[in-house]
Amino acid sequence: MAKLVMIRHGQSEWNAKNLFNGWVDTKLSPVGIEQAKTAGKMLAEAGIDFDQAYTSVLTRAIETLDLTLFEAGQMFIPEEKSWRLNERNYGALQGLNKADAAEKFGADQVLQWRRSYDVLPPLLESAEETVEVEGQTYASYDRRYAEVAAEELPLGENLKVTLERVMPFWNEKISADLKAGKNVVIAAHGNSLRALAKHIEQISDEDILGLEIANAQPIIYDFDGDLNVLSKDILTAE
Amino acid sequence: MAKLVMIRHGQSEWNAKNLFNGWVDTKLSPVGIEQAKTAGKMLAEAGIDFDQAYTSVLTRAIETLDLTLFEAGQMFIPEEKSWRLNERNYGALQGLNKADAAEKFGADQVLQWRRSYDVLPPLLESAEETVEVEGQTYASYDRRYAEVAAEELPLGENLKVTLERVMPFWNEKISADLKAGKNVVIAAHGNSLRALAKHIEQISDEDILGLEIANAQPIIYDFDGDLNVLSKDILTAE
Repeated sequence: MAKLVMIRHGQSEWNAKNLFNGWVDTKLSPVGIEQAKTAGKMLAEAGIDFDQAYTSVLTRAIETLDLTLFEAGQMFIPEEKSWRLNERNYGALQGLNKADAAEKFGADQVLQWRRSYDVLPPLLESAEETVEVEGQTYASYDRRYAEVAAEELPLGENLKVTLERVMPFWNEKISADLKAGKNVVIAAHGNSLRALAKHIEQISDEDILGLEIANAQPIIYDFDGDLNVLSKDILTAE
Repeated sequence: MAKLVMIRHGQSEWNAKNLFNGWVDTKLSPVGIEQAKTAGKMLAEAGIDFDQAYTSVLTRAIETLDLTLFEAGQMFIPEEKSWRLNERNYGALQGLNKADAAEKFGADQVLQWRRSYDVLPPLLESAEETVEVEGQTYASYDRRYAEVAAEELPLGENLKVTLERVMPFWNEKISADLKAGKNVVIAAHGNSLRALAKHIEQISDEDILGLEIANAQPIIYDFDGDLNVLSKDILTAE
């Protein structure tokens, strides 16, 4: 029997400003830092000994993992970072304010981009495309993706595509650890974790639309040796 | 040509109290946290793009690495933790105040334990031995060493023994990366870094006694393809 704990990063600077974040590499806000520390304290209290940590290559998730493991007194466990655990790439929506986007494209259209399973957002024109926010220039792509095959790198993703690129990492790494009885912690993003939850809990394409994952509230799954879910808990600060 | 940056952790809670620290897992002090952030800012200014990070399994080194990479905007690089980069195991001296030890054992004896190349400190009686400091109990060993062969785990080390257990990690990982042209950053400890410096700079058993490595001052080596040192720089905050 093994445990998997999934943690969505704490509030990011762009979450705080209500901007589409995606692959743009933002940091945790001061609120997000406190949320991540609280998650770590809750996990310390839950008494789970972790064997392996995974996270994305985006700063807000890595910060969350580090703060969580520090507070849980388990910084020493092995930690692997993968672009496959990144947030959904929000394409040309990245950097837009969600309310502004609703005004520009219509609320229904934006809701469809945000919540539908298989509708793609407007795509980036190329991996070189950047976005200006408050006078600063942000890119989706930089040298951290240098060793990923160009055809694997998205210019915009829906949840379906996100799930497809998360699955190889689940199959090769995470599920192998769990089958070996290891307790695993993943710090990642709203949509990469929704994709994992969809697979783990066998949630339908329709029902997944209703699943929200809150910042820094650890989701704890207990599995049997065949990776059937025995229990699911969510730790909240209240 | 590749670069290696070695960073001794920032001041730890036990550095601040003048206690022998060794394998006891202490945290950075508030001063140490600021030192690590400053190191990261200096490396950001130096403009080095890292490909790989290594650290020990001790919290103060991992914290230092995380803070450094955060400030340098490079949290995304792969990070591997190994007990082979741990501080020298100070045996039964761990937890003692350095001044108290000098009174108890004599200043010359303590200086020999601290600075000689091949004199062992008083050993722990077993891996289970703990030490009390200010009412709290600290162990050298816990589950993080579960997969290391028992005969490899020290009960007390001099610099010579420290060098011997660091070298396999240098040979298998760090030097392989450098030969492949990768820029490597290591956040570790006074004595594991002195051991590496001794090997890299071919410092004699006598001269290594004079080498002090300061908290959180990055040491930058430039190597040619055969790992000859082309230059050595130390970044200081002043």
